[in-house]
Amino acid sequence: MTTIEDRPAGTLAPVLTPFKPDGSPCTRRFKEHCQRLLEQDVGLVLFGTNSEAASMTAHEKRNLLEALREAGGLPPGTMVGVGSCALAETLELTRAALDSGCSNVLMLPPFFYKGVSDEGLFRSVARVIESIGDARLRIYLYHIPAVSQVPFSMSLIGRLLGAYPGAIAGIKDSAGDPVHTLDLISEFRGHSFDVFAGNETHLVDVMQAGAAGVISATANVNGAAIAHLCNAWNTPVAPAEQAAANHLRAAFSKYPMITAMKTAIAARLGDATWARVRAPLIELDAGQKDALLSELIAMSCRSPHEQLS
Amino acid sequence: MTTIEDRPAGTLAPVLTPFKPDGSPCTRRFKEHCQRLLEQDVGLVLFGTNSEAASMTAHEKRNLLEALREAGGLPPGTMVGVGSCALAETLELTRAALDSGCSNVLMLPPFFYKGVSDEGLFRSVARVIESIGDARLRIYLYHIPAVSQVPFSMSLIGRLLGAYPGAIAGIKDSAGDPVHTLDLISEFRGHSFDVFAGNETHLVDVMQAGAAGVISATANVNGAAIAHLCNAWNTPVAPAEQAAANHLRAAFSKYPMITAMKTAIAARLGDATWARVRAPLIELDAGQKDALLSELIAMSCRSPHEQLS
Repeated sequence: MTTIEDRPAGTLAPVLTPFKPDGSPCTRRFKEHCQRLLEQDVGLVLFGTNSEAASMTAHEKRNLLEALREAGGLPPGTMVGVGSCALAETLELTRAALDSGCSNVLMLPPFFYKGVSDEGLFRSVARVIESIGDARLRIYLYHIPAVSQVPFSMSLIGRLLGAYPGAIAGIKDSAGDPVHTLDLISEFRGHSFDVFAGNETHLVDVMQAGAAGVISATANVNGAAIAHLCNAWNTPVAPAEQAAANHLRAAFSKYPMITAMKTAIAARLGDATWARVRAPLIELDAGQKDALLSELIAMSCRSPHEQLS
Repeated sequence: MTTIEDRPAGTLAPVLTPFKPDGSPCTRRFKEHCQRLLEQDVGLVLFGTNSEAASMTAHEKRNLLEALREAGGLPPGTMVGVGSCALAETLELTRAALDSGCSNVLMLPPFFYKGVSDEGLFRSVARVIESIGDARLRIYLYHIPAVSQVPFSMSLIGRLLGAYPGAIAGIKDSAGDPVHTLDLISEFRGHSFDVFAGNETHLVDVMQAGAAGVISATANVNGAAIAHLCNAWNTPVAPAEQAAANHLRAAFSKYPMITAMKTAIAARLGDATWARVRAPLIELDAGQKDALLSELIAMSCRSPHEQLS
């Protein structure tokens, strides 16, 4: 069964996937980035939206899992994104996560067909749980309706929790509405159901309400600050740190987020290869790149208090 | 190069995929259904939306292609759906289609990320054409914005046609708006670009304007009638046949289309296995099934003229 240590909590990043000049995933840069995140007290979500997971094959994801396993194993508290349109692929990735020693999977619903019934989505998740048949499995539902276009409704979550307590372990709420996150926490407070905010913009509020933590894209580039805020939400520094984190996030949000973060990492490391993205995403143009990096440099030269003025 | 015979035209069906009781694709029923369609003068689109292609792995699709190849090859004018979120999978399926002797592929754009740029979509298609590097390849763009949420804009189509004339062979327009289909025909009339309507509801109008044909879900269940109308659009029988075809389609459109069509085929063949769908789709409930079958039986007992009264 899951140890406390293996239960994800606090701040996690959907780990950006670096690509080599030939377009294939770069395992060296990937492992280095994971290490940098862990050193900042940021946990790992492999193969999330911001990892360009949808643009990678199951084979490529398994290779990256294997690279981490060979490098010492997946750290406790890691999650692996497994959701696919085809349940057989979701099963393949879930088995690969378990084989890699990771019981925590982040699960998109099948997202091609739109307007599907809660009954159909229930069966999709149930099928995975029953086919895997492993008591270690902990599923975190991935609610990101603006992208997947297929939501996990409150009643569906309740039904899943009733049928599979333990296996249904929590949710990443990327609805983009803090009220929805608070509603989830309130609705399922009596269950063992960990609610993660989908970004840090209302982290103090959701932690106060009982969130398990946050899984945020910007933890790839602002991990230490978000992780500190997540631990310090009930201390006097929290309001200023919340504002500073939001200010930094806003700088990235002016551009396609994945590309902007990769551009910033490439500049920070002096490694242009990091800026590569897979189609249909494209790199920032020269003007966007200059504007983003100038803003980040300007922000880094001010204290958090000054950043807000 | 492509022979005239191998150029898709007229009426095609996105071939429904039958599943065995264990959930795997049934090659025997699949081949039989393909044969029934061909006998009705209906061409084949393997792995379309209505084929539940998104719910199948690349491996399963390759196995079905192989089954058809072993059974005598893919008929001339067949299309194979190859679009996936991950371009490497799109490439794998495109190569499998060509290896099976089929040069015509129906291509969804990468559909997970939303709000992507035309530049990113251009690169996605360009990447496939250049990686395949085979002059036989004929790509039919699959425009189905309500499902994919990622459209092929007029300007993107124009740019693709300019860069890759020959490789960009046409489009399936499932925008659900006949005006859009007519606009496509008009806009790209000077090119070798075959516009297929995404359903038969305005078939006479679009054929009159110069459409290459129609790729419609309901050709799985009403193929002979749609194929006849598609050939007879400029004859006196066309208005009545158009109305009759629309009347039949309306009966199926009251329910989730894939499930309704499979239910009708199961009833027609006396083969309950045909009604199986993969999650997240679900079968019709008993009331829906009875209502659908009753309406179909009632329609079959009237002449086309009576159906309209």
